[in-house]
Amino acid sequence: MTEMNVSDYMAGVGQAARAAAVTLARASTKAKNEALLATAARITEAAADILAANARDLAAASDLDAAMRDRLTLTPARVAAMAAGLKEVAALADPIGTITDLAYRPTGIQVGKMRVPLGVVGIIYEARPNVTADAAALCLKSGNAAILRGGSEAHHANQAVAACVKAGLEAAGLPAAAVQVLATTDRAAVGEMLTHPEFIDVIVPRGGKGLIERVSREARMPVIKHLDGVCHVYIDADADLDKAVAIAHNAKCQRYGTCNTMETLLVNAAIAPQVLPPLLARYRAEGVELRGCPLTRAIDANMGAATEQDWYEEYLAPILAIRVVQDLDEAIAHIRRYGSQHTDAIVTEHLVRARRFIVEVDSSSVMVNASTRFADGFEYGLGAEIGISTDKFHARGPVGLEGLTSQKWVVIGDGHLRA
Amino acid sequence: MTEMNVSDYMAGVGQAARAAAVTLARASTKAKNEALLATAARITEAAADILAANARDLAAASDLDAAMRDRLTLTPARVAAMAAGLKEVAALADPIGTITDLAYRPTGIQVGKMRVPLGVVGIIYEARPNVTADAAALCLKSGNAAILRGGSEAHHANQAVAACVKAGLEAAGLPAAAVQVLATTDRAAVGEMLTHPEFIDVIVPRGGKGLIERVSREARMPVIKHLDGVCHVYIDADADLDKAVAIAHNAKCQRYGTCNTMETLLVNAAIAPQVLPPLLARYRAEGVELRGCPLTRAIDANMGAATEQDWYEEYLAPILAIRVVQDLDEAIAHIRRYGSQHTDAIVTEHLVRARRFIVEVDSSSVMVNASTRFADGFEYGLGAEIGISTDKFHARGPVGLEGLTSQKWVVIGDGHLRA
Repeated sequence: MTEMNVSDYMAGVGQAARAAAVTLARASTKAKNEALLATAARITEAAADILAANARDLAAASDLDAAMRDRLTLTPARVAAMAAGLKEVAALADPIGTITDLAYRPTGIQVGKMRVPLGVVGIIYEARPNVTADAAALCLKSGNAAILRGGSEAHHANQAVAACVKAGLEAAGLPAAAVQVLATTDRAAVGEMLTHPEFIDVIVPRGGKGLIERVSREARMPVIKHLDGVCHVYIDADADLDKAVAIAHNAKCQRYGTCNTMETLLVNAAIAPQVLPPLLARYRAEGVELRGCPLTRAIDANMGAATEQDWYEEYLAPILAIRVVQDLDEAIAHIRRYGSQHTDAIVTEHLVRARRFIVEVDSSSVMVNASTRFADGFEYGLGAEIGISTDKFHARGPVGLEGLTSQKWVVIGDGHLRA
Repeated sequence: MTEMNVSDYMAGVGQAARAAAVTLARASTKAKNEALLATAARITEAAADILAANARDLAAASDLDAAMRDRLTLTPARVAAMAAGLKEVAALADPIGTITDLAYRPTGIQVGKMRVPLGVVGIIYEARPNVTADAAALCLKSGNAAILRGGSEAHHANQAVAACVKAGLEAAGLPAAAVQVLATTDRAAVGEMLTHPEFIDVIVPRGGKGLIERVSREARMPVIKHLDGVCHVYIDADADLDKAVAIAHNAKCQRYGTCNTMETLLVNAAIAPQVLPPLLARYRAEGVELRGCPLTRAIDANMGAATEQDWYEEYLAPILAIRVVQDLDEAIAHIRRYGSQHTDAIVTEHLVRARRFIVEVDSSSVMVNASTRFADGFEYGLGAEIGISTDKFHARGPVGLEGLTSQKWVVIGDGHLRA
């Protein structure tokens, strides 16, 4: 497509999404669930087609690095997981239409709030075809029309999944334009998505930092986004040694590449001589590279020195920065200065310091005696996760269906007048 | 100040606000209430000074129109109302720190949400010195630092009120920079506020449409804003005649200049011959100018013809557009096309049509058998109102203290690890 054509094409997509959003906002839970289950069935039936489309994508994408290639690759198990994910979203409670807090006011009117969709959700993501099914399901269940733009390397698989979604929507009598997976791989389509608030109510970028920064900068509508995950575990003077070692190990080593992985360990000076030796031994057994502050290296000299830059670093790798601090205040000050307000945990048996940590650490998840790795929509019981927001406005931390909704006020009277 | 100075001055204000926000976020309810009550006491004591400052402002502002002059003018009663407003906010429940939905997950961790301040709130408003006290109170109670920029015509009165707020904060041991009323009247300060998300987390413009559009366009942080209020009342075929006349009269005539005033009346054709004659007589008794569609004028020829533009108009004046529609679908379609998603009401005794109206009208307030004039934070029980949002993201409709807050996730375990 020429750039002119992309602009026209996107305007058509936007208008179709707006029209579909009206229908979808009032679609019954039954119809939405039928569409999800029919899509799951279609994906199961069309597994061979989806895998063949993915094979075409993989053949064309010879220059991807191993991690990107892994995310692009579908297997029979991954296709089955897509179908299972759709069924799980169908099983979630429908947030739309719920009326809460309907109460009488002194004037006699009843006032409450009803949960409603945002309208049209735009999702821009990397070359991961399973995200297509996942994102479609979350938007559909929350009553929003969706415009999905996946990485162009996954184009054929995305189109194969899109065909299943379309069939599912039609089987349930819902408009096919309720979920539109862009048919163009032209990069100009992203720019079009970001600059048309008349077509898209909220943008969710899922992918690398470059994409997220671009979307934040250019989007003319609200963005639900996730930037850095520089997460901390602070081992307090009154920590239980066994819990401290287990949590600090799990937070780092359970998975290295996730945003809720601990990147910096803070240890109270009073407990450091006891807790560091067994903990460092466990890290070394896993092959984790350690970088310590001078006080850490005074306890264990067998590691490199952490630089100022290390405290800001989101390694997403088997590397850990370690700092010994004198008290809770110093730990909180460190987190405030270097952290990314994502997820931070304290290990302590001390009630007052646990309470202070919860109140004073301004992160989207604050934890006591638990691994930072729990910061996740599924672990929190959201049932599904559209992403993790590092913003405070609208949605914070793991974002489930509710993050794609708003609430309107409902007022019921019986001829009531304002005095 | 020169522009360079304004930039430096605003950076200082921003840094002081950020520092104060940390203290304020963990300030006790007691300290915040003490500051509010001490400010109220200071305003009462300093009433003569505030009125004298206001007299200076009024003397300098000879070219204001009558409405602006009225908003700028303080009287002993208005000063007393400021103090009373502060006491009312002190009496409201503190939203900060409330933990909700703390529940065990299958893994054994407890997960809940804690309400927290947004951080630093910027409020840009017209020359209304009472808004200074009101805005300061709402930000303080919700644990946010505030940067307030009132219309320059109210500069002296704003500074007099600011001195009372400062004294109140100091009396309660809270940082004076928790509420900063800009000492400069340089218009460049507004631009500085809008372009520094590192200092301000959310902007609330309160004033004319020009200001709000500018803020929406230029702000690099989220905006809680109110645009148009093109509100409708739809009189259904099954409306009770007396209720319909009373509600349609109240929605238009109880006050003309407010955003929740009805601007267009929609009447079902089946009931129009019965309901319009008594209703139009009441409008005429109030001197309301009527503009009707052809079907309306077929019933009552004694009015001008409504043009296409009338359906979009927010008159804020004793003018009313009237349209006869054939059914609920046509009414909803009219509201969707011409409305501003603010407040719309149906008058009906018919259950199914009432339910459809509530679900299908996508406005921040939808009402059944009640006057649109009820769309207001105080009427809804919010206790105070930072404004009315016509957006869906974050806050919608009347915005109270909660609109200035967010929620963070709190996770409590006892050595729990992610499997």
